[in-house]
Amino acid sequence: MLRDQSQILQLGVGLRVMSGARVINLGGGPGALPLTALEQAQQDLVNFAGTGMGVIEISHRSKEFERVLSDAIADLRTLLSVPSNYKILFMQGGATAQFSAVPLNLPCSKALYLVSGAWSQKAAEEAQRYLAIDTLESKSASTDKKLKYTSLPVDVDWVAPAGYGFVYYCDNETVHGVEYSFVPKVPEGTSLVCDMSSNFLSRKVDVSKFGVIFAGAQKNIGPSGTVVVIVREDLLNKADPKCPLMLNYSVFAKDNSLHNTPNTFGVYFTGLVFDWLKKKGGLESQEDENSRKSKLTYAAIDGSKKFFAPVRPECRSRTNIVFHLHKDFESKENDFSSCAEKNAIVGFNGHRSLGGFRASLYNAISLDETQKFIQSLQDFDARE
Amino acid sequence: MLRDQSQILQLGVGLRVMSGARVINLGGGPGALPLTALEQAQQDLVNFAGTGMGVIEISHRSKEFERVLSDAIADLRTLLSVPSNYKILFMQGGATAQFSAVPLNLPCSKALYLVSGAWSQKAAEEAQRYLAIDTLESKSASTDKKLKYTSLPVDVDWVAPAGYGFVYYCDNETVHGVEYSFVPKVPEGTSLVCDMSSNFLSRKVDVSKFGVIFAGAQKNIGPSGTVVVIVREDLLNKADPKCPLMLNYSVFAKDNSLHNTPNTFGVYFTGLVFDWLKKKGGLESQEDENSRKSKLTYAAIDGSKKFFAPVRPECRSRTNIVFHLHKDFESKENDFSSCAEKNAIVGFNGHRSLGGFRASLYNAISLDETQKFIQSLQDFDARE
Repeated sequence: MLRDQSQILQLGVGLRVMSGARVINLGGGPGALPLTALEQAQQDLVNFAGTGMGVIEISHRSKEFERVLSDAIADLRTLLSVPSNYKILFMQGGATAQFSAVPLNLPCSKALYLVSGAWSQKAAEEAQRYLAIDTLESKSASTDKKLKYTSLPVDVDWVAPAGYGFVYYCDNETVHGVEYSFVPKVPEGTSLVCDMSSNFLSRKVDVSKFGVIFAGAQKNIGPSGTVVVIVREDLLNKADPKCPLMLNYSVFAKDNSLHNTPNTFGVYFTGLVFDWLKKKGGLESQEDENSRKSKLTYAAIDGSKKFFAPVRPECRSRTNIVFHLHKDFESKENDFSSCAEKNAIVGFNGHRSLGGFRASLYNAISLDETQKFIQSLQDFDARE
Repeated sequence: MLRDQSQILQLGVGLRVMSGARVINLGGGPGALPLTALEQAQQDLVNFAGTGMGVIEISHRSKEFERVLSDAIADLRTLLSVPSNYKILFMQGGATAQFSAVPLNLPCSKALYLVSGAWSQKAAEEAQRYLAIDTLESKSASTDKKLKYTSLPVDVDWVAPAGYGFVYYCDNETVHGVEYSFVPKVPEGTSLVCDMSSNFLSRKVDVSKFGVIFAGAQKNIGPSGTVVVIVREDLLNKADPKCPLMLNYSVFAKDNSLHNTPNTFGVYFTGLVFDWLKKKGGLESQEDENSRKSKLTYAAIDGSKKFFAPVRPECRSRTNIVFHLHKDFESKENDFSSCAEKNAIVGFNGHRSLGGFRASLYNAISLDETQKFIQSLQDFDARE
């Protein structure tokens, strides 16, 4: 019954199918995910854990799903060394829902938003629906929108002024490719809130410095539609009375993310990714690999004659490498895309609001794949 | 490389794997989904539409995903004959998020909630956070919680009093097994809002009677984490200024459900189910099949000596068949479960709040599978 048995590989438990060649996907998100997790999910979609039901068909109250959820939480707690006074929640609506959830869960007389790119800017805008806020924005050296966010609004020595209920920032700006290499300091009594959507689990983090960390899954850890929230317990039970049930951290904490039916596939798949990351050696080795990937890529860009990276070296994202063609070569934008696509490398065009290029080197992109991209870049650069 | 080629079947395009026996899953949701859709998803998880990327790895801005979304919307519009002055939205957070979204999107001086079971009761409770409401609850004949909701609060001749901004009801109460066989009447100027989560696409509906219809996907149409909202266009742009972005119908309508990254897997999978339903003959034939399934099941319960169905015949759910053992046989609850499980029929225990039994006959449960369940019930009933 098989057309081509060579297409079929047996990988791990059970039987898997690989059909057609996979590409190197440098898309900004949804983006590349570990193949082993995808293959496990293929199998589990029709019959999960011997239940005779697919993983998206089992009850969220079943012992099988309870195990999925508790394993995912435990693995994440281990990977990120999440202290025991923090709850790990699986919520829905992406990071954008958190832009509303943060001010609704942490009402205060005033909050401070550090604006270093498109995402923190959107978060600040949404927060104003619920709170008085101040903003501190990166100083722009240029009126060119491509160059609007190339630095950070604060430095490593900065300490937030007292009087704010919380200070909010976005650790890695996916669109503009700007990342913090330090954790901004806040005075005692002020909570630090961080959007880590696009660099979550790309490196170690001292969770104890934060009041709330959240991360949309569709970058480093899974499919879109799931957002992980890590919240310090003393911040629970303070929500605005008008906070919708599905945005209320306390409701999710009390019911262990099972107040209503969660996105079961999302929880399941992030669990597979956590397991993959643990088996790969955890965040220490992943951080090393990510660091090598981005250093090599920036070195190739900086060493080229046709490309440049606009972001200042001290705050360049290790995850989303934003770069452009110099003016003289701008007409060749499509040539470079075609050249890389011939090598089955896709998704590295810049965000639709900026143009140019962006190579997203998420955890699932290996050093080897990164080097293939660099080779394409150098080949194109060497052309007359 | 294959251990057992007989396990492998070629189904449709490409290669699929079936490993282990599937069961008859009568769970209340997440519940049974069409096997053909699950098998298509298995394939698409690793390489979707020849992209070399899995369906959860492609950008939500890619032409491939835009096609997925537009096909899903078009197919749903066809299946349910959704008029052109209604928008179809894919949102997140399940029906519970809609319990907040409805009053936030339709602010008014007062709304009326018809309470016929657990879900409309929860919706009414959440609405009070935002609005003044009146409720009209089913009259209970009994103090036994199993028998609390066995009828409807209104009948086919009832017309809502004037003066309410909207009238809200739940068409099918998944927990209590109570379903409307008619659409409650509202005066001109009052919008009718309906939670159709558990009977969505189980029968034809005259959408033009409604202001808003919503349905959590994890019953009849897909995985949990997606909720479909059908909203009449004149109800847009009226939201409370404090309505979070991700609950705002107007934001989703304006950006065609792509304001931020949607649950791409959820949209994709519901699209597969819509396609399956179209190919099966659409809602007319599905409605006939569902009607036969439920009639046969209730007839077996009513004709038994050990079981009874508590809900009044005129409002028994065709989807969630709630039934119990008569007092004399209550000690045999586990025996019946084991007996059916021996025939690979699972998930029919009652909601944890009620006990007893509930057979959920969603669209993916065939007449043949229903008959196997009935046979188990009759075998158990015939035992001494």
